[in-house]
Amino acid sequence: GVGDGASRLVDRLLMAVIVVNLVAVALESVPEYSERYGVVFGLIEDVSLVIFTVEYVLRLWAAPEHLPYHRLGATRARVRYALSAAGLVDLIAVLPFWFAFLVPSELRVLQVFRMVRFFKIARYSPAMRSLLDVLYRERRALIGCVVITLGTAVVAAAAMHLAEARVQPDKLGTIPQALWWAIVTLGTIGYGDVVPITVAGKIIATVTIFLGLIMMALPVGIIATAFADEIHRRNFIVTWG
Amino acid sequence: GVGDGASRLVDRLLMAVIVVNLVAVALESVPEYSERYGVVFGLIEDVSLVIFTVEYVLRLWAAPEHLPYHRLGATRARVRYALSAAGLVDLIAVLPFWFAFLVPSELRVLQVFRMVRFFKIARYSPAMRSLLDVLYRERRALIGCVVITLGTAVVAAAAMHLAEARVQPDKLGTIPQALWWAIVTLGTIGYGDVVPITVAGKIIATVTIFLGLIMMALPVGIIATAFADEIHRRNFIVTWG
Amino acid sequence: GVGDGASRLVDRLLMAVIVVNLVAVALESVPEYSERYGVVFGLIEDVSLVIFTVEYVLRLWAAPEHLPYHRLGATRARVRYALSAAGLVDLIAVLPFWFAFLVPSELRVLQVFRMVRFFKIARYSPAMRSLLDVLYRERRALIGCVVITLGTAVVAAAAMHLAEARVQPDKLGTIPQALWWAIVTLGTIGYGDVVPITVAGKIIATVTIFLGLIMMALPVGIIATAFADEIHRRNFIVTWG
Amino acid sequence: GVGDGASRLVDRLLMAVIVVNLVAVALESVPEYSERYGVVFGLIEDVSLVIFTVEYVLRLWAAPEHLPYHRLGATRARVRYALSAAGLVDLIAVLPFWFAFLVPSELRVLQVFRMVRFFKIARYSPAMRSLLDVLYRERRALIGCVVITLGTAVVAAAAMHLAEARVQPDKLGTIPQALWWAIVTLGTIGYGDVVPITVAGKIIATVTIFLGLIMMALPVGIIATAFADEIHRRNFIVTWG
Repeated sequence: GVGDGASRLVDRLLMAVIVVNLVAVALESVPEYSERYGVVFGLIEDVSLVIFTVEYVLRLWAAPEHLPYHRLGATRARVRYALSAAGLVDLIAVLPFWFAFLVPSELRVLQVFRMVRFFKIARYSPAMRSLLDVLYRERRALIGCVVITLGTAVVAAAAMHLAEARVQPDKLGTIPQALWWAIVTLGTIGYGDVVPITVAGKIIATVTIFLGLIMMALPVGIIATAFADEIHRRNFIVTWG
Repeated sequence: GVGDGASRLVDRLLMAVIVVNLVAVALESVPEYSERYGVVFGLIEDVSLVIFTVEYVLRLWAAPEHLPYHRLGATRARVRYALSAAGLVDLIAVLPFWFAFLVPSELRVLQVFRMVRFFKIARYSPAMRSLLDVLYRERRALIGCVVITLGTAVVAAAAMHLAEARVQPDKLGTIPQALWWAIVTLGTIGYGDVVPITVAGKIIATVTIFLGLIMMALPVGIIATAFADEIHRRNFIVTWG
Repeated sequence: GVGDGASRLVDRLLMAVIVVNLVAVALESVPEYSERYGVVFGLIEDVSLVIFTVEYVLRLWAAPEHLPYHRLGATRARVRYALSAAGLVDLIAVLPFWFAFLVPSELRVLQVFRMVRFFKIARYSPAMRSLLDVLYRERRALIGCVVITLGTAVVAAAAMHLAEARVQPDKLGTIPQALWWAIVTLGTIGYGDVVPITVAGKIIATVTIFLGLIMMALPVGIIATAFADEIHRRNFIVTWG
Repeated sequence: GVGDGASRLVDRLLMAVIVVNLVAVALESVPEYSERYGVVFGLIEDVSLVIFTVEYVLRLWAAPEHLPYHRLGATRARVRYALSAAGLVDLIAVLPFWFAFLVPSELRVLQVFRMVRFFKIARYSPAMRSLLDVLYRERRALIGCVVITLGTAVVAAAAMHLAEARVQPDKLGTIPQALWWAIVTLGTIGYGDVVPITVAGKIIATVTIFLGLIMMALPVGIIATAFADEIHRRNFIVTWG
C-alpha cells in the first residue's frame, strides 16, 4: 500500500545519506577539498547526524512492533534492539559525535567512527546480512583459525629472528619486528618490506609460506561447509517436509 | 551432416579471428610494432570488424531459429538475443568502432572495447559458459561480498589514516590514499607501495590482514556451495528420477 | 562443584601464564626493554618454567585418570600422554630450558622453543583443538599438496633460471635462487625482491602463477571436504540413529 | 614374501636416486659448487641416467604384467604405458639426455628436463597420485578458469593502459606490459614492480582485485566439489551397496 511505498522511499533515502556521508568523510580528509568545500562537508555531517539520530530514536521507539521482538514486552524489545548488532552500529554511528560536539576532540578518531556508519547499509541487503550471519555463527571456529595463525606466526617469527637478526638487525632485530614479517607472510600479502636474505631464513620462510597456505584453507573450509550445511538443511526440509 | 561440419568450421574460424584480433590489439600498442606493421594491424581490424558485424547481423536474424528462443515470435526472439549477455558482448564488439569510424576518437578507449571481444570466445566453450553461469547465478551473494569487503576497507582505511597520517603524509595522508592501502591488503595483493611503519599501524594492518583472509573465504564458500549444490541436484535426479 | 570451579580457575591461570610468557619473550628481544626490564623478564621466565614443569609432572602423574587413557594401565597411560601431541608440546615447553640451565647456550635458539609454548593454549579451546585435529587427520593429503607444489616449484625454478640467469645473474643466477622466486610466487606471496624482466621470464611466471592458483585450491578442497564430511556423518547419525 | 621386500627396497632406492638427482641439479647450477664438485655431479647424472633408462626399459617390458594393462595384449599394454602420464614422465626423464649425449646442447635447457624427473616420485605416493588425478579429471573446468582469468586480464590490461600509459610509459606504455601487471594482480601475487599511481588507475586496479578474488574462488570451488563428490559417491556405495 501507500505505507509500503513510503517505507521503501525512506530506505532509499537513508541508503543515499549513508553513501553521501562516507564519500564526504573520505574527501574531507584531502586538504585541498577540505579547504574549498569545508562548509559543504560540515553541512553534510550535521544533517546526517540529525537524520541518524532521529532514525535511532525512532527504531528504538518502534522496536516492540518489529518482527523478531514481536512477542516481547516494549522495554525488553527496546533493550534487545539496543544490544543487537544493528542497534550497536546505529548507536556507534551517532553517539561519539554528540560527545565530540560537547567536548572538542581529535578529528581523525571521529573519522573511524563515521566510517562504521557503512555497516548501517547491511540492514537493506538480505545477501549481505546472510553473509554476516554466517560469519557470526562461525565466529568461534574463525577465532580459532586466527589464534592458530597467530601461534604459527610467533613460532615463525622467533625462528626467523634466530636466522636473520644478525644480518638484518634493522628489520628482523627483534621478535615483534619478525612477527610483522610472519603475519604479512602467513596472510600471503608479501609487501616485500621485510624479506629473508640468508639461506636459513629462506628455508624458514618456505616452511612458513606452506603453513600459511594450509592455514588459509581453514576459514575457507569452515565457511564453505557452513553455506553447504545451510543449503543442505533447507533442501532436506523442502524434500521431506 | 555437411551443415554440421560447416558450422564447426565457421566456429573455428571465428575463434581464430578473435584470438588473432586480441594478439593484434596487444602488439599494436607496442610503438615499434605499430610503426612497422601498422598496415597489417589496420587490415586485421578492418577485416575482423566486417566479420564480427556480419556475424552479429546473422545471429540477430537467425535468433528465432535458436534453441532458447525457439518458441518465441521472431521479433521477441531477436530482442531477447540482443539483450542477452552474449548479444551484448557481440554488440560491444562492433558498435563503438562504427561510431569511431564516423567520429575520430581516442585509440586507447577503443582498445578496451576491442579486448571485450575476448568474451565472444565463451560461446564456444561449455566449461567456460557454465563457470560464467555460476558467477552470474551467485551475483547477488558475490556483490554482497564485495560490499562487505569495501565496508571493511573504509573502516580499515580510516583507522590506518588515524595511525599513520602524520608519519607518512605522502602515502597515508588522506583517507582515499589509505583506502588504496586497505584494498590492496584485504585482497591479499600487497604491492608494498604503501606499508605501515608504526606499531599502531602494524597492529591495524594485522587485524586488516586477518579480516581479509576471512572475507576471502566468503566468495570461495559461495561458489564451492553453488557447484556442490548443482552436482547434488543432478545426482538426486539421476538417483531418484 | 568446588573442584570444577577450582579446575577452571587453574585453567585460566595457566592460560594467563602462557600469554604473559609469549609477550615477555617478544618484548625481551627488543634491546631497550631487555636492558631496562631484564630482571622482570628473567623472573617471568623462571616462575613460568617452574609452573610449566610442575604442570607437566602433574599431568604425567594424573594421566591414568584422564578420559582417553582411562582403561589403560598406569604406565601405559603415562607413556601415551608423553608421546601425544599435547604431551610433546608440554615437554618441549620445559625440557630445553633445564638443559640450558645446565649448559649455557644461545638465547635465540631458546626463544623459538619458548614460542612453542603457545600451542599449550590449544588444550583449552575446543574449536582450536578440532581445527588442529582436521589438519592432523588430513596430514597425508596436505603433505601430498606440499610435495606437488615443491615439484612444480623446482620445474618452474629451472625454467626461470633458463630464461633469466643471464639478465639477472645476481637474483636468478642459480637454481636455488630461482627456487626462492618460485616458492614465493606459487604461494601467491610475491615479495617483489625477485621479479622476471624478460618476455620469456614473464611468460614462465604467468604459467607459474596459474599453476599456483590451481595448487592452492588443493588444500582448501581437502579441508573443506574434511569439514563437510564430518558434519555429514554427524547429521547422518542424528537423522538415522 | 621375499619379492615384496625386494620390490619395496627398489622403490626406496629409486626415490633416493630421484631426490639426490634434484639436489645435484640445483647445486650444480651454483658456480662455486659446480667448479669444486663438478666430477661428483657428472657422476650422479651419469649413474642416474643409466638407472632411469634401465627402469624405463624394464617398465616398458613388464607393462603387460601390470594391473591396469593386465588383460591387454603385450604390445598394446606397452603402448598404453608409453603414452600414459607416468610413461611420458619416465621417457622425458631420459630421452633428452641421450640426445644431448650425441648432439652437444645448452646445459640450462637440460636442467628443466632433469627437474621433470621430480614427478617420477608421484608413482610412490597414493595421496599425491589421487591429488593429481583430481586435477586431471577437472582439467576442462580448470582450463576454463584459466581462460576466463586471461580474458579478464586482457580487458583489465587495456583499461590500465588507457589510464596510465602516459604517466608511466616505461611500465604500462604497451598492452603486453599492462598484461603483466593484470596477471600479477589477478593472481593476488602483487610483486609491486608495476603499481598504478593515478586515481583512475587505482580504481581500475580495485575492480581488478575484486574480480581476481572472485576468479580465484572458481578453481577452489571446482576442486572442493570434486573431492566432496568422490567421497559422497564412496559413502553412497558403502551405505547402499
